[in-house]
Amino acid sequence: MTPKLEDVAKLAKVSKTTVSRVLNKRGYLSQKTIDRVYAAMRELNYHPNVVARQLYKSQTNLIGLLFPTVANPFFGELVDALEKNLYRQGFKVLIGNSMNDPKKEAAYLDQLLIKQVDGLIVGTHNQGIKEYDTANLPIVAIDRIMNADIPIVESDNYRGGELATERLIQRGAKHIIHTNGPIDLETPARRRRVAYEGTMQAHNLEPLTYTVDFNISAKAKKEIFEKIFQEHPEVEAVFAANDVDAALIMNVAQKLGRQVPKDFLVIGYDGTQVVRELMPNLTTIMQPTAQMAEQAVKVLGQRMNNEPTETEYILPVKLWSGTSA
Amino acid sequence: MTPKLEDVAKLAKVSKTTVSRVLNKRGYLSQKTIDRVYAAMRELNYHPNVVARQLYKSQTNLIGLLFPTVANPFFGELVDALEKNLYRQGFKVLIGNSMNDPKKEAAYLDQLLIKQVDGLIVGTHNQGIKEYDTANLPIVAIDRIMNADIPIVESDNYRGGELATERLIQRGAKHIIHTNGPIDLETPARRRRVAYEGTMQAHNLEPLTYTVDFNISAKAKKEIFEKIFQEHPEVEAVFAANDVDAALIMNVAQKLGRQVPKDFLVIGYDGTQVVRELMPNLTTIMQPTAQMAEQAVKVLGQRMNNEPTETEYILPVKLWSGTSA
Repeated sequence: MTPKLEDVAKLAKVSKTTVSRVLNKRGYLSQKTIDRVYAAMRELNYHPNVVARQLYKSQTNLIGLLFPTVANPFFGELVDALEKNLYRQGFKVLIGNSMNDPKKEAAYLDQLLIKQVDGLIVGTHNQGIKEYDTANLPIVAIDRIMNADIPIVESDNYRGGELATERLIQRGAKHIIHTNGPIDLETPARRRRVAYEGTMQAHNLEPLTYTVDFNISAKAKKEIFEKIFQEHPEVEAVFAANDVDAALIMNVAQKLGRQVPKDFLVIGYDGTQVVRELMPNLTTIMQPTAQMAEQAVKVLGQRMNNEPTETEYILPVKLWSGTSA
Repeated sequence: MTPKLEDVAKLAKVSKTTVSRVLNKRGYLSQKTIDRVYAAMRELNYHPNVVARQLYKSQTNLIGLLFPTVANPFFGELVDALEKNLYRQGFKVLIGNSMNDPKKEAAYLDQLLIKQVDGLIVGTHNQGIKEYDTANLPIVAIDRIMNADIPIVESDNYRGGELATERLIQRGAKHIIHTNGPIDLETPARRRRVAYEGTMQAHNLEPLTYTVDFNISAKAKKEIFEKIFQEHPEVEAVFAANDVDAALIMNVAQKLGRQVPKDFLVIGYDGTQVVRELMPNLTTIMQPTAQMAEQAVKVLGQRMNNEPTETEYILPVKLWSGTSA
């Protein structure tokens, strides 16, 4: 049976009104009471009725989008697609770029959660932001694990990692290096790394992953990429974390006298339209941006209507076959 | 002497309250009255006191950004920079992508102008949208001429056109074609065309401009670019309207057997960070995106405080010297 607000009140040993006030962040509440109510909610797996909550909150018809930066082609394309989908359903979007700035992300959340938006779609990379756990707001994540209650829309990162690694092996490379985000970052993109390492091992090849934080500058990234060639002059191919990094790696390789694809292979990730137009020769894994946006908006709608949702929505990827690998 | 609200009332033969109601879009007003008040405002060059208007309107601390699409690298980078600047000043941004869709732009304006934002920064490409003329809201345009009362922030399009054309001539090209938006589009980017045509003529070369609407699909653009080579097999160089178009032209040229830069030169426009990372070899004109964003936010602030502003702010461009031209 679905737990009710009164079950939470009973377990937390508070009144129903107090639970309601916690959910709607109204009036003075001690941290102890707030913690007790949330503990009871978690124990009972209680999901506040968003429709009921909306009675307290005036609807804004605004949806917040929090992403690292729209200056990156993948997020630019994704935000564009999200805005189009949301607009069709009568929503306008409020956008925050939180790259490099967890304080800004927390501040955005703090302000948005209070009253400014009806829902949130998030794909940021910052860690340790507690506001999500107590956010009494419909939220959908894209490519990011935030907490057990927030559904995730993602592309098939495991299959993407497999496809990329297999392609490089097929093209004859043995010394293949992968770049990926920090391992402690809670993101499904980690599965690309798992797939890469598994595929390498299945072919009796030794995997080697370099950590490259998405949030650092192009200059700092280039230094890491130069180090790859210094520390591993035997490297024949790189499976990069994204297309912009793949381009930077290609530039570093060419400066060091490597010719692509003659004696060095590069495969990217994301495969946005603009990158395919600018660098049609870059072999890459295409994320289904339009479908991801559509799915995220659909799931957010279900959350807003208090309908059941899945925990994870995994959408298929495709290889874009260029000449770089 | 600065005209006052009562001067407008006198000239329009209505009460001061009516002028105020027109300015604040409150209560029932006949179109005839509205038109008469705006005609009087125009005749007297009266600028409504934004501070006074804010007394009627609850502040939202939201700024609307209307651009064609954040999926394009230039607008992605610009919107990212605008959001960062606005956030620092306590504003959040509401974003609309209106590419290809004048109805959506008009609808956005209609909704935003009423109550949702405190100001607007606009860089869209749609034409004939009358909402801007009667918008009683602080507005700044980027790279777009909307009406005489809306200040424009832009980069030095004339100098950019000169720099690009001179570069191609220096590199030995004589048959140089330029692509630019529709000539009836009210945008400062037209000055690039004027500069290109003037520079060509100064060198006794024949200018030839192809019209390529920014809003059409990549496929439709490629068809136009193929036509350039069919209709003008003598073409040695193209000065493209933007970097994405430059990349498409390069692809078309290479498919037709032209080698860049050996027997065909291409120069782009915009020079965003991401394009310089993806295609460092593309010679292009760099727009000062960060400074344009900063200037636009500054001017919007002045408008919101009812301080005087210039009509036009022109910021310097630079050549990014790649190998494509």
